[in-house]
Amino acid sequence: MSTSEPAGSASRLARFSINQMTVKQLSMPELVDACRGLGVPGVGLWREPVQAYGLERTAKLVRDAGLTVTTLCRGGFLTAIDPAERVTALDDNRLAVDEAATLGTDTLVLVSGGLPAGSKDLRGARERIADALGELGPYAEERGVRLAIEPLHPMFASDRCVVSTLAQALDLAERFPAHQVGVTVDTYHIWWDDQAPAQIARAGAGGRIHTFQLADWTTPLPEGVLNGRGQLGDGSVDLREWQAYVEAAGYTGPIEVELFNDGLWARDGREVLAETAARFVSHTD
Amino acid sequence: MSTSEPAGSASRLARFSINQMTVKQLSMPELVDACRGLGVPGVGLWREPVQAYGLERTAKLVRDAGLTVTTLCRGGFLTAIDPAERVTALDDNRLAVDEAATLGTDTLVLVSGGLPAGSKDLRGARERIADALGELGPYAEERGVRLAIEPLHPMFASDRCVVSTLAQALDLAERFPAHQVGVTVDTYHIWWDDQAPAQIARAGAGGRIHTFQLADWTTPLPEGVLNGRGQLGDGSVDLREWQAYVEAAGYTGPIEVELFNDGLWARDGREVLAETAARFVSHTD
Repeated sequence: MSTSEPAGSASRLARFSINQMTVKQLSMPELVDACRGLGVPGVGLWREPVQAYGLERTAKLVRDAGLTVTTLCRGGFLTAIDPAERVTALDDNRLAVDEAATLGTDTLVLVSGGLPAGSKDLRGARERIADALGELGPYAEERGVRLAIEPLHPMFASDRCVVSTLAQALDLAERFPAHQVGVTVDTYHIWWDDQAPAQIARAGAGGRIHTFQLADWTTPLPEGVLNGRGQLGDGSVDLREWQAYVEAAGYTGPIEVELFNDGLWARDGREVLAETAARFVSHTD
Repeated sequence: MSTSEPAGSASRLARFSINQMTVKQLSMPELVDACRGLGVPGVGLWREPVQAYGLERTAKLVRDAGLTVTTLCRGGFLTAIDPAERVTALDDNRLAVDEAATLGTDTLVLVSGGLPAGSKDLRGARERIADALGELGPYAEERGVRLAIEPLHPMFASDRCVVSTLAQALDLAERFPAHQVGVTVDTYHIWWDDQAPAQIARAGAGGRIHTFQLADWTTPLPEGVLNGRGQLGDGSVDLREWQAYVEAAGYTGPIEVELFNDGLWARDGREVLAETAARFVSHTD
Protein backbone atom coordinates (compact mmCIF):
# COMPACT_ATOMS: atom_id res chain seq x y z
CA MET A 1 0.00 0.00 0.00
CA SER A 2 1.31 3.40 -0.94
CA THR A 3 2.56 5.51 1.93
CA SER A 4 0.90 8.50 0.31
CA GLU A 5 -2.54 7.04 0.79
CA PRO A 6 -4.75 8.95 3.20
CA ALA A 7 -5.39 7.07 6.41
CA GLY A 8 -8.70 5.31 6.49
CA SER A 9 -9.36 5.32 2.75
CA ALA A 10 -8.56 1.63 2.24
CA SER A 11 -11.82 0.60 3.84
CA ARG A 12 -13.62 3.17 1.70
CA LEU A 13 -12.26 1.32 -1.33
CA ALA A 14 -13.54 -2.06 -0.17
CA ARG A 15 -16.21 -2.15 -2.89
CA PHE A 16 -14.25 -0.27 -5.54
CA SER A 17 -13.31 -2.00 -8.75
CA ILE A 18 -11.46 -0.29 -11.55
CA ASN A 19 -12.58 -1.25 -14.99
CA GLN A 20 -9.47 -1.77 -17.05
CA MET A 21 -10.72 0.44 -19.87
CA THR A 22 -10.60 3.47 -17.58
CA VAL A 23 -6.81 3.22 -17.52
CA LYS A 24 -6.18 1.34 -20.73
CA GLN A 25 -2.81 3.05 -21.06
CA LEU A 26 -1.54 0.76 -18.27
CA SER A 27 -0.18 -2.64 -19.19
CA MET A 28 -1.61 -5.59 -17.33
CA PRO A 29 1.29 -5.76 -14.83
CA GLU A 30 1.21 -1.98 -14.38
CA LEU A 31 -2.52 -2.12 -13.69
CA VAL A 32 -2.13 -4.88 -11.12
CA ASP A 33 0.78 -3.12 -9.48
CA ALA A 34 -1.08 0.19 -9.34
CA CYS A 35 -4.10 -1.51 -7.78
CA ARG A 36 -1.94 -3.09 -5.10
CA GLY A 37 -0.24 0.22 -4.42
CA LEU A 38 -3.51 2.07 -3.91
CA GLY A 39 -5.37 -0.69 -2.12
CA VAL A 40 -7.83 -1.19 -4.97
CA PRO A 41 -9.34 -4.64 -4.40
CA GLY A 42 -11.08 -5.30 -7.72
CA VAL A 43 -10.63 -5.03 -11.46
CA GLY A 44 -12.99 -5.38 -14.39
CA LEU A 45 -11.04 -6.80 -17.30
CA TRP A 46 -11.47 -6.62 -21.07
CA ARG A 47 -10.98 -9.51 -23.39
CA GLU A 48 -8.57 -7.89 -25.83
CA PRO A 49 -5.88 -6.89 -23.31
CA VAL A 50 -6.34 -10.20 -21.51
CA GLN A 51 -5.78 -12.09 -24.75
CA ALA A 52 -2.82 -9.89 -25.60
CA TYR A 53 -1.15 -10.55 -22.25
CA GLY A 54 -2.25 -14.17 -22.22
CA LEU A 55 -5.32 -15.63 -20.52
CA GLU A 56 -3.62 -18.00 -18.08
CA ARG A 57 -0.87 -15.49 -17.45
CA THR A 58 -3.42 -12.80 -16.59
CA ALA A 59 -5.34 -15.18 -14.36
CA LYS A 60 -2.17 -16.00 -12.43
CA LEU A 61 -1.12 -12.34 -12.21
CA VAL A 62 -4.38 -11.13 -10.69
CA ARG A 63 -4.74 -14.21 -8.46
CA ASP A 64 -1.23 -13.82 -7.08
CA ALA A 65 -1.96 -10.15 -6.41
CA GLY A 66 -5.10 -11.02 -4.49
CA LEU A 67 -7.26 -8.99 -6.85
CA THR A 68 -10.90 -9.87 -7.47
CA VAL A 69 -11.91 -9.89 -11.12
CA THR A 70 -15.37 -8.35 -10.82
CA THR A 71 -16.39 -8.69 -14.47
CA LEU A 72 -15.09 -9.59 -17.88
CA CYS A 73 -16.07 -7.18 -20.66
CA ARG A 74 -17.46 -8.12 -22.98
CA GLY A 75 -19.49 -10.66 -24.84
CA GLY A 76 -22.51 -9.92 -26.96
CA PHE A 77 -22.95 -8.58 -30.50
CA LEU A 78 -25.68 -11.11 -30.99
CA THR A 79 -27.88 -9.35 -33.54
CA ALA A 80 -26.49 -10.68 -36.83
CA ILE A 81 -29.01 -12.08 -39.31
CA ASP A 82 -26.51 -13.96 -41.46
CA PRO A 83 -26.32 -17.59 -40.23
CA ALA A 84 -22.55 -17.81 -40.53
CA GLU A 85 -22.10 -14.57 -38.61
CA ARG A 86 -24.43 -15.88 -35.91
CA VAL A 87 -22.40 -19.07 -35.55
CA THR A 88 -19.22 -17.03 -35.26
CA ALA A 89 -20.79 -14.74 -32.66
CA LEU A 90 -22.04 -17.64 -30.54
CA ASP A 91 -18.66 -19.37 -30.72
CA ASP A 92 -16.96 -16.18 -29.66
CA ASN A 93 -19.34 -15.75 -26.74
CA ARG A 94 -18.71 -19.31 -25.56
CA LEU A 95 -15.02 -18.47 -25.65
CA ALA A 96 -15.72 -15.34 -23.61
CA VAL A 97 -17.52 -17.46 -21.02
CA ASP A 98 -14.53 -19.79 -20.87
CA GLU A 99 -12.20 -16.83 -20.41
CA ALA A 100 -14.37 -15.45 -17.61
CA ALA A 101 -14.26 -18.79 -15.84
CA THR A 102 -10.49 -19.00 -16.20
CA LEU A 103 -10.11 -15.47 -14.81
CA GLY A 104 -12.23 -16.43 -11.83
CA THR A 105 -15.02 -13.92 -12.41
CA ASP A 106 -18.68 -14.90 -12.23
CA THR A 107 -19.90 -12.13 -14.53
CA LEU A 108 -19.61 -11.65 -18.27
CA VAL A 109 -20.94 -8.28 -19.43
CA LEU A 110 -22.88 -8.39 -22.71
CA VAL A 111 -23.16 -5.50 -25.14
CA SER A 112 -25.91 -6.83 -27.32
CA GLY A 113 -25.04 -5.36 -30.71
CA GLY A 114 -26.63 -2.84 -33.05
CA LEU A 115 -28.77 -3.12 -36.15
CA PRO A 116 -27.28 -5.19 -38.97
CA ALA A 117 -26.39 -3.10 -42.02
CA GLY A 118 -29.50 -1.95 -43.81
CA SER A 119 -31.90 -3.20 -41.14
CA LYS A 120 -34.38 -0.94 -39.34
CA ASP A 121 -35.92 -3.73 -37.28
CA LEU A 122 -35.14 -3.15 -33.59
CA ARG A 123 -37.69 -5.70 -32.42
CA GLY A 124 -36.23 -8.42 -34.64
CA ALA A 125 -32.73 -7.67 -33.42
CA ARG A 126 -33.88 -7.92 -29.81
CA GLU A 127 -35.48 -11.31 -30.53
CA ARG A 128 -32.24 -12.62 -32.01
CA ILE A 129 -30.51 -11.63 -28.77
CA ALA A 130 -33.07 -13.68 -26.85
CA ASP A 131 -32.43 -16.66 -29.13
CA ALA A 132 -28.70 -16.40 -28.49
CA LEU A 133 -29.18 -16.10 -24.73
CA GLY A 134 -31.12 -19.34 -24.81
CA GLU A 135 -28.01 -21.05 -26.14
CA LEU A 136 -25.44 -19.20 -24.07
CA GLY A 137 -27.20 -19.18 -20.69
CA PRO A 138 -26.90 -22.92 -19.96
CA TYR A 139 -23.34 -22.97 -21.30
CA ALA A 140 -22.40 -20.13 -18.93
CA GLU A 141 -24.18 -21.72 -15.98
CA GLU A 142 -22.16 -24.90 -16.36
CA ARG A 143 -19.01 -22.81 -15.98
CA GLY A 144 -20.22 -20.72 -13.05
CA VAL A 145 -20.60 -17.57 -15.13
CA ARG A 146 -23.61 -15.25 -15.26
CA LEU A 147 -24.42 -13.15 -18.31
CA ALA A 148 -25.12 -9.47 -17.58
CA ILE A 149 -27.03 -7.69 -20.34
CA GLU A 150 -25.96 -4.06 -20.38
CA PRO A 151 -28.49 -1.57 -21.67
CA LEU A 152 -26.52 1.11 -23.45
CA HIS A 153 -27.61 4.72 -23.74
CA PRO A 154 -30.18 5.16 -26.55
CA MET A 155 -27.61 7.11 -28.56
CA PHE A 156 -25.97 3.72 -29.25
CA ALA A 157 -29.17 1.99 -30.37
CA SER A 158 -28.34 1.75 -34.07
CA ASP A 159 -24.66 0.91 -34.08
CA ARG A 160 -23.79 -0.78 -30.80
CA CYS A 161 -26.69 -1.95 -28.67
CA VAL A 162 -30.38 -2.26 -29.49
CA VAL A 163 -31.08 -2.75 -25.77
CA SER A 164 -31.49 0.83 -24.56
CA THR A 165 -33.23 0.64 -21.18
CA LEU A 166 -33.15 -1.48 -18.06
CA ALA A 167 -36.75 -2.42 -18.77
CA GLN A 168 -35.77 -3.85 -22.16
CA ALA A 169 -32.79 -5.66 -20.63
CA LEU A 170 -34.99 -7.20 -17.96
CA ASP A 171 -37.65 -8.17 -20.49
CA LEU A 172 -34.90 -10.21 -22.13
CA ALA A 173 -33.21 -11.49 -18.98
CA GLU A 174 -36.41 -12.65 -17.32
CA ARG A 175 -36.97 -15.24 -20.01
CA PHE A 176 -34.08 -17.13 -18.39
CA PRO A 177 -33.05 -18.10 -14.84
CA ALA A 178 -31.42 -15.28 -12.88
CA HIS A 179 -28.27 -17.30 -12.31
CA GLN A 180 -27.89 -17.47 -16.09
CA VAL A 181 -28.93 -13.99 -17.24
CA GLY A 182 -29.15 -10.68 -15.39
CA VAL A 183 -28.30 -7.07 -16.10
CA THR A 184 -25.55 -4.50 -15.81
CA VAL A 185 -26.64 -1.29 -14.11
CA ASP A 186 -24.39 1.51 -15.37
CA THR A 187 -25.26 5.05 -14.36
CA TYR A 188 -23.91 6.52 -17.60
CA HIS A 189 -26.51 4.72 -19.67
CA ILE A 190 -29.60 5.08 -17.51
CA TRP A 191 -29.29 8.27 -15.47
CA TRP A 192 -31.78 10.17 -17.67
CA ASP A 193 -34.52 7.49 -17.34
CA ASP A 194 -37.24 8.18 -14.79
CA GLN A 195 -38.32 4.54 -15.08
CA ALA A 196 -34.88 3.19 -14.14
CA PRO A 197 -35.27 3.32 -10.33
CA ALA A 198 -38.34 1.08 -10.54
CA GLN A 199 -36.49 -1.21 -12.94
CA ILE A 200 -33.57 -1.46 -10.52
CA ALA A 201 -36.03 -2.57 -7.87
CA ARG A 202 -37.42 -5.13 -10.33
CA ALA A 203 -33.92 -6.36 -11.11
CA GLY A 204 -32.98 -6.60 -7.46
CA ALA A 205 -36.13 -8.48 -6.53
CA GLY A 206 -35.27 -11.04 -9.16
CA GLY A 207 -31.63 -11.33 -8.15
CA ARG A 208 -30.57 -9.96 -11.51
CA ILE A 209 -28.26 -7.03 -10.70
CA HIS A 210 -25.09 -8.82 -11.73
CA THR A 211 -22.87 -5.74 -11.73
CA PHE A 212 -23.14 -2.05 -10.89
CA GLN A 213 -20.98 0.44 -12.76
CA LEU A 214 -20.43 4.15 -12.33
CA ALA A 215 -19.61 6.88 -14.81
CA ASP A 216 -20.69 10.49 -14.92
CA TRP A 217 -22.43 12.30 -17.79
CA THR A 218 -20.57 15.26 -19.25
CA THR A 219 -21.12 17.40 -22.33
CA PRO A 220 -20.37 18.31 -25.03
CA LEU A 221 -20.21 14.75 -26.31
CA PRO A 222 -17.27 14.03 -28.59
CA GLU A 223 -17.64 12.94 -32.21
CA GLY A 224 -18.86 9.36 -32.27
CA VAL A 225 -19.99 9.78 -28.62
CA LEU A 226 -18.12 6.68 -27.40
CA ASN A 227 -15.27 8.22 -25.48
CA GLY A 228 -16.91 11.02 -23.55
CA ARG A 229 -17.75 9.34 -20.25
CA GLY A 230 -17.15 11.71 -17.39
CA GLN A 231 -14.95 11.23 -14.35
CA LEU A 232 -17.04 10.76 -11.20
CA GLY A 233 -18.21 14.13 -9.95
CA ASP A 234 -17.58 16.02 -13.17
CA GLY A 235 -21.08 15.68 -14.58
CA SER A 236 -24.83 15.58 -14.09
CA VAL A 237 -25.32 12.23 -12.39
CA ASP A 238 -26.21 12.04 -8.71
CA LEU A 239 -24.09 8.94 -8.11
CA ARG A 240 -25.12 8.52 -4.48
CA GLU A 241 -28.77 8.48 -5.53
CA TRP A 242 -28.13 5.58 -7.91
CA GLN A 243 -26.04 3.75 -5.36
CA ALA A 244 -28.96 4.06 -2.96
CA TYR A 245 -31.31 2.56 -5.57
CA VAL A 246 -29.19 -0.53 -6.13
CA GLU A 247 -28.60 -0.97 -2.42
CA ALA A 248 -32.30 -0.64 -1.64
CA ALA A 249 -32.74 -3.37 -4.25
CA GLY A 250 -30.38 -5.61 -2.27
CA TYR A 251 -27.14 -5.16 -4.23
CA THR A 252 -24.09 -5.26 -1.97
CA GLY A 253 -21.43 -6.25 -4.50
CA PRO A 254 -18.50 -4.45 -6.10
CA ILE A 255 -18.93 -1.04 -7.69
CA GLU A 256 -17.00 -0.78 -10.88
CA VAL A 257 -15.89 2.49 -12.44
CA GLU A 258 -15.75 2.32 -16.21
CA LEU A 259 -14.77 5.48 -18.08
CA PHE A 260 -14.06 5.75 -21.78
CA ASN A 261 -12.47 9.15 -21.96
CA ASP A 262 -9.84 10.44 -24.34
CA GLY A 263 -8.77 13.04 -21.81
CA LEU A 264 -8.12 10.44 -19.11
CA TRP A 265 -6.34 8.16 -21.57
CA ALA A 266 -3.93 10.95 -22.48
CA ARG A 267 -2.75 11.19 -18.87
CA ASP A 268 -0.50 9.03 -16.70
CA GLY A 269 -2.49 5.89 -15.94
CA ARG A 270 -1.41 5.59 -12.30
CA GLU A 271 -2.40 9.18 -11.69
CA VAL A 272 -5.80 8.54 -13.29
CA LEU A 273 -6.31 5.44 -11.15
CA ALA A 274 -5.44 7.36 -7.99
CA GLU A 275 -7.78 10.18 -8.99
CA THR A 276 -10.57 7.73 -9.79
CA ALA A 277 -10.16 6.01 -6.42
CA ALA A 278 -10.29 9.38 -4.68
CA ARG A 279 -13.40 10.36 -6.64
CA PHE A 280 -14.98 7.05 -5.73
CA VAL A 281 -14.44 7.81 -2.06
CA SER A 282 -15.87 11.32 -2.49
CA HIS A 283 -18.93 10.39 -4.51
CA THR A 284 -20.14 7.11 -3.02
CA ASP A 285 -21.28 6.13 0.44
CA MET B 1 -44.92 24.79 -59.76
CA SER B 2 -41.60 23.71 -61.21
CA THR B 3 -41.76 22.14 -64.63
CA SER B 4 -39.21 19.58 -63.47
CA GLU B 5 -41.57 18.17 -60.85
CA PRO B 6 -42.76 14.62 -61.55
CA ALA B 7 -46.42 14.44 -62.44
CA GLY B 8 -48.65 13.50 -59.55
CA SER B 9 -46.23 14.33 -56.74
CA ALA B 10 -48.06 17.50 -55.69
CA SER B 11 -50.79 15.49 -54.04
CA ARG B 12 -48.12 13.38 -52.35
CA LEU B 13 -46.85 16.59 -50.79
CA ALA B 14 -50.25 17.59 -49.41
CA ARG B 15 -49.17 16.86 -45.82
CA PHE B 16 -45.53 17.85 -46.21
CA SER B 17 -44.17 20.77 -44.26
CA ILE B 18 -40.55 21.84 -44.40
CA ASN B 19 -39.11 22.97 -41.13
CA GLN B 20 -37.14 26.10 -41.84
CA MET B 21 -34.08 24.82 -39.98
CA THR B 22 -33.64 22.06 -42.57
CA VAL B 23 -32.77 24.70 -45.17
CA LYS B 24 -31.60 27.51 -42.94
CA GLN B 25 -29.27 28.72 -45.70
CA LEU B 26 -32.34 30.06 -47.50
CA SER B 27 -33.56 33.56 -46.68
CA MET B 28 -37.23 33.89 -45.80
CA PRO B 29 -38.24 35.03 -49.32
CA GLU B 30 -36.07 32.30 -50.87
CA LEU B 31 -37.73 29.70 -48.66
CA VAL B 32 -41.21 30.86 -49.55
CA ASP B 33 -40.36 31.03 -53.21
CA ALA B 34 -38.81 27.56 -53.19
CA CYS B 35 -41.88 26.14 -51.45
CA ARG B 36 -44.16 27.64 -54.07
CA GLY B 37 -41.98 26.35 -56.86
CA LEU B 38 -42.07 22.79 -55.56
CA GLY B 39 -45.65 22.75 -54.37
CA VAL B 40 -44.69 22.48 -50.72
CA PRO B 41 -47.78 23.58 -48.80
CA GLY B 42 -46.41 24.05 -45.27
CA VAL B 43 -43.50 25.51 -43.35
CA GLY B 44 -42.37 25.23 -39.76
CA LEU B 45 -40.74 28.51 -38.79
CA TRP B 46 -38.11 29.44 -36.21
CA ARG B 47 -38.27 32.51 -34.07
CA GLU B 48 -34.81 33.90 -34.81
CA PRO B 49 -35.12 34.09 -38.61
CA VAL B 50 -38.68 35.33 -38.24
CA GLN B 51 -37.52 38.13 -35.94
CA ALA B 52 -34.63 38.91 -38.26
CA TYR B 53 -36.91 39.25 -41.29
CA GLY B 54 -39.63 40.92 -39.24
CA LEU B 55 -42.65 39.27 -37.64
CA GLU B 56 -45.43 41.08 -39.51
CA ARG B 57 -43.41 41.00 -42.71
CA THR B 58 -42.98 37.22 -42.42
CA ALA B 59 -46.66 36.74 -41.63
CA LYS B 60 -47.63 38.67 -44.75
CA LEU B 61 -45.06 36.87 -46.91
CA VAL B 62 -46.27 33.38 -46.03
CA ARG B 63 -49.95 34.40 -46.07
CA ASP B 64 -49.65 35.95 -49.51
CA ALA B 65 -47.91 32.80 -50.74
CA GLY B 66 -50.72 30.61 -49.43
CA LEU B 67 -48.35 28.69 -47.16
CA THR B 68 -49.54 27.11 -43.94
CA VAL B 69 -47.31 27.75 -40.95
CA THR B 70 -47.50 24.37 -39.27
CA THR B 71 -45.47 25.22 -36.15
CA LEU B 72 -43.31 27.89 -34.62
CA CYS B 73 -40.09 26.62 -33.05
CA ARG B 74 -39.48 27.19 -30.30
CA GLY B 75 -40.44 28.17 -26.81
CA GLY B 76 -39.35 26.44 -23.66
CA PHE B 77 -36.13 26.54 -21.64
CA LEU B 78 -38.24 26.59 -18.53
CA THR B 79 -35.94 24.87 -16.03
CA ALA B 80 -34.13 27.82 -14.46
CA ILE B 81 -34.06 27.98 -10.67
CA ASP B 82 -33.07 31.64 -10.40
CA PRO B 83 -36.27 33.74 -10.01
CA ALA B 84 -35.12 36.48 -12.35
CA GLU B 85 -34.19 33.93 -15.01
CA ARG B 86 -37.60 32.32 -14.63
CA VAL B 87 -39.38 35.64 -15.12
CA THR B 88 -37.31 36.29 -18.24
CA ALA B 89 -38.06 32.80 -19.59
CA LEU B 90 -41.80 33.15 -19.01
CA ASP B 91 -41.84 36.58 -20.64
CA ASP B 92 -39.99 35.21 -23.62
CA ASN B 93 -42.42 32.31 -23.93
CA ARG B 94 -45.40 34.66 -23.84
CA LEU B 95 -43.72 36.58 -26.65
CA ALA B 96 -43.27 33.31 -28.56
CA VAL B 97 -47.00 32.62 -28.16
CA ASP B 98 -47.78 36.08 -29.51
CA GLU B 99 -45.47 35.47 -32.47
CA ALA B 100 -47.14 32.13 -33.20
CA ALA B 101 -50.55 33.79 -33.18
CA THR B 102 -49.37 36.54 -35.51
CA LEU B 103 -47.90 33.97 -37.90
CA GLY B 104 -51.21 32.14 -37.95
CA THR B 105 -49.95 28.84 -36.55
CA ASP B 106 -51.78 27.04 -33.77
CA THR B 107 -48.69 25.20 -32.46
CA LEU B 108 -45.68 26.41 -30.50
CA VAL B 109 -43.04 23.70 -30.04
CA LEU B 110 -41.39 23.67 -26.61
CA VAL B 111 -37.87 22.44 -25.92
CA SER B 112 -38.04 22.29 -22.18
CA GLY B 113 -34.46 23.09 -21.18
CA GLY B 114 -31.62 21.20 -19.52
CA LEU B 115 -30.26 21.08 -15.99
CA PRO B 116 -29.25 24.44 -14.53
CA ALA B 117 -25.48 24.74 -13.99
CA GLY B 118 -24.39 22.55 -11.12
CA SER B 119 -27.74 20.85 -10.66
CA LYS B 120 -28.22 17.08 -10.86
CA ASP B 121 -31.93 17.18 -10.09
CA LEU B 122 -33.88 16.00 -13.14
CA ARG B 123 -37.11 15.61 -11.19
CA GLY B 124 -36.94 19.14 -9.85
CA ALA B 125 -36.29 20.51 -13.33
CA ARG B 126 -39.31 18.65 -14.68
CA GLU B 127 -41.48 20.08 -11.91
CA ARG B 128 -40.39 23.61 -12.77
CA ILE B 129 -41.51 22.96 -16.35
CA ALA B 130 -44.91 21.95 -15.04
CA ASP B 131 -45.11 25.14 -13.00
CA ALA B 132 -44.31 27.20 -16.09
CA LEU B 133 -46.86 25.35 -18.22
CA GLY B 134 -49.50 26.25 -15.64
CA GLU B 135 -48.80 29.90 -16.38
CA LEU B 136 -48.29 29.65 -20.12
CA GLY B 137 -51.13 27.28 -21.02
CA PRO B 138 -54.02 29.68 -20.35
CA TYR B 139 -52.09 32.53 -21.99
CA ALA B 140 -51.62 30.43 -25.11
CA GLU B 141 -55.23 29.26 -25.15
CA GLU B 142 -56.49 32.84 -25.19
CA ARG B 143 -54.47 33.38 -28.35
CA GLY B 144 -55.46 30.16 -30.09
CA VAL B 145 -52.05 28.56 -29.65
CA ARG B 146 -51.30 25.08 -28.29
CA LEU B 147 -48.03 24.24 -26.58
CA ALA B 148 -46.32 21.08 -27.88
CA ILE B 149 -43.78 19.63 -25.45
CA GLU B 150 -41.04 17.95 -27.46
CA PRO B 151 -39.24 15.10 -25.77
CA LEU B 152 -35.66 15.26 -26.98
CA HIS B 153 -33.39 12.23 -27.32
CA PRO B 154 -31.89 11.26 -23.94
CA MET B 155 -28.47 12.38 -25.17
CA PHE B 156 -29.76 15.95 -24.68
CA ALA B 157 -31.03 15.38 -21.13
CA SER B 158 -28.38 17.41 -19.33
CA ASP B 159 -27.88 20.40 -21.58
CA ARG B 160 -31.01 20.91 -23.64
CA CYS B 161 -34.09 19.02 -22.53
CA VAL B 162 -34.79 17.08 -19.34
CA VAL B 163 -37.90 15.64 -20.99
CA SER B 164 -36.50 12.56 -22.74
CA THR B 165 -39.47 10.33 -23.57
CA LEU B 166 -43.01 10.68 -24.82
CA ALA B 167 -44.17 9.19 -21.53
CA GLN B 168 -42.48 11.99 -19.59
CA ALA B 169 -43.87 14.60 -21.99
CA LEU B 170 -47.39 13.22 -21.56
CA ASP B 171 -47.02 13.01 -17.79
CA LEU B 172 -46.43 16.76 -17.95
CA ALA B 173 -48.98 17.59 -20.64
CA GLU B 174 -51.83 15.67 -19.04
CA ARG B 175 -51.80 17.96 -16.04
CA PHE B 176 -53.37 20.54 -18.38
CA PRO B 177 -56.17 20.61 -20.96
CA ALA B 178 -55.22 19.12 -24.34
CA HIS B 179 -56.05 22.34 -26.17
CA GLN B 180 -53.42 24.04 -24.02
CA VAL B 181 -50.63 21.46 -23.83
CA GLY B 182 -49.78 18.46 -25.99
CA VAL B 183 -46.67 16.89 -27.42
CA THR B 184 -44.40 16.88 -30.44
CA VAL B 185 -43.79 13.43 -31.88
CA ASP B 186 -40.42 13.52 -33.65
CA THR B 187 -39.04 10.22 -34.94
CA TYR B 188 -35.43 11.29 -34.37
CA HIS B 189 -35.91 11.52 -30.64
CA ILE B 190 -38.08 8.47 -29.95
CA TRP B 191 -37.28 5.85 -32.58
CA TRP B 192 -35.24 3.72 -30.15
CA ASP B 193 -38.01 3.58 -27.52
CA ASP B 194 -40.11 0.41 -27.45
CA GLN B 195 -42.61 2.23 -25.22
CA ALA B 196 -43.16 5.04 -27.71
CA PRO B 197 -45.84 3.35 -29.86
CA ALA B 198 -48.07 2.89 -26.80
CA GLN B 199 -47.37 6.47 -25.78
CA ILE B 200 -48.36 7.70 -29.24
CA ALA B 201 -51.65 5.87 -28.78
CA ARG B 202 -52.03 7.53 -25.37
CA ALA B 203 -51.28 10.93 -26.88
CA GLY B 204 -53.70 10.41 -29.73
CA ALA B 205 -56.50 9.23 -27.44
CA GLY B 206 -56.10 12.45 -25.48
CA GLY B 207 -55.97 14.68 -28.55
CA ARG B 208 -52.42 15.67 -27.68
CA ILE B 209 -50.40 14.96 -30.85
CA HIS B 210 -49.96 18.61 -31.77
CA THR B 211 -47.30 18.02 -34.41
CA PHE B 212 -45.52 15.10 -36.06
CA GLN B 213 -41.95 15.54 -37.27
CA LEU B 214 -39.65 13.28 -39.25
CA ALA B 215 -35.90 12.89 -39.24
CA ASP B 216 -33.75 9.83 -39.71
CA TRP B 217 -31.07 8.52 -37.34
CA THR B 218 -27.57 8.30 -38.80
CA THR B 219 -24.18 7.61 -37.25
CA PRO B 220 -21.49 8.48 -36.40
CA LEU B 221 -22.90 11.39 -34.46
CA PRO B 222 -20.94 14.62 -34.83
CA GLU B 223 -19.24 16.38 -31.92
CA GLY B 224 -21.91 17.99 -29.77
CA VAL B 225 -24.50 15.66 -31.40
CA LEU B 226 -26.85 18.49 -32.35
CA ASN B 227 -26.35 18.67 -36.09
CA GLY B 228 -26.32 15.04 -37.15
CA ARG B 229 -29.96 14.42 -38.03
CA GLY B 230 -30.22 12.23 -41.06
CA GLN B 231 -32.02 12.91 -44.32
CA LEU B 232 -35.12 10.73 -44.66
CA GLY B 233 -34.11 7.28 -45.82
CA ASP B 234 -30.44 7.58 -44.93
CA GLY B 235 -30.69 6.00 -41.50
CA SER B 236 -32.17 3.44 -39.14
CA VAL B 237 -35.70 4.73 -38.68
CA ASP B 238 -38.64 2.95 -40.28
CA LEU B 239 -40.48 6.20 -41.04
CA ARG B 240 -43.58 4.50 -42.43
CA GLU B 241 -43.92 2.50 -39.22
CA TRP B 242 -43.99 5.70 -37.14
CA GLN B 243 -46.37 7.38 -39.55
CA ALA B 244 -48.66 4.39 -39.11
CA TYR B 245 -48.52 4.75 -35.32
CA VAL B 246 -49.57 8.41 -35.35
CA GLU B 247 -52.26 7.77 -37.92
CA ALA B 248 -53.63 4.83 -35.94
CA ALA B 249 -53.75 7.28 -33.04
CA GLY B 250 -55.92 9.61 -35.11
CA TYR B 251 -53.36 12.15 -36.32
CA THR B 252 -54.12 13.42 -39.82
CA GLY B 253 -52.25 16.73 -39.74
CA PRO B 254 -49.12 18.02 -41.43
CA ILE B 255 -45.88 16.05 -41.34
CA GLU B 256 -42.92 18.30 -40.79
CA VAL B 257 -39.37 17.41 -41.76
CA GLU B 258 -36.83 18.96 -39.44
CA LEU B 259 -33.16 18.17 -40.08
CA PHE B 260 -30.21 19.77 -38.35
CA ASN B 261 -27.38 18.65 -40.56
CA ASP B 262 -24.12 20.37 -41.37
CA GLY B 263 -23.87 18.44 -44.63
CA LEU B 264 -27.26 19.62 -45.83
CA TRP B 265 -26.56 23.18 -44.73
CA ALA B 266 -23.40 23.25 -46.84
CA ARG B 267 -25.40 22.57 -50.02
CA ASP B 268 -27.70 24.70 -52.14
CA GLY B 269 -30.86 25.21 -50.11
CA ARG B 270 -33.28 24.85 -53.02
CA GLU B 271 -31.63 21.58 -53.99
CA VAL B 272 -31.91 20.34 -50.41
CA LEU B 273 -35.58 21.29 -50.27
CA ALA B 274 -36.26 19.46 -53.53
CA GLU B 275 -34.39 16.41 -52.27
CA THR B 276 -36.25 16.48 -48.97
CA ALA B 277 -39.60 16.69 -50.73
CA ALA B 278 -38.64 13.75 -52.94
CA ARG B 279 -37.50 11.74 -49.90
CA PHE B 280 -40.78 12.58 -48.18
CA VAL B 281 -42.68 11.12 -51.12
CA SER B 282 -40.47 8.01 -51.11
CA HIS B 283 -40.57 7.34 -47.38
CA THR B 284 -44.11 8.20 -46.32
CA ASP B 285 -47.50 6.85 -47.33
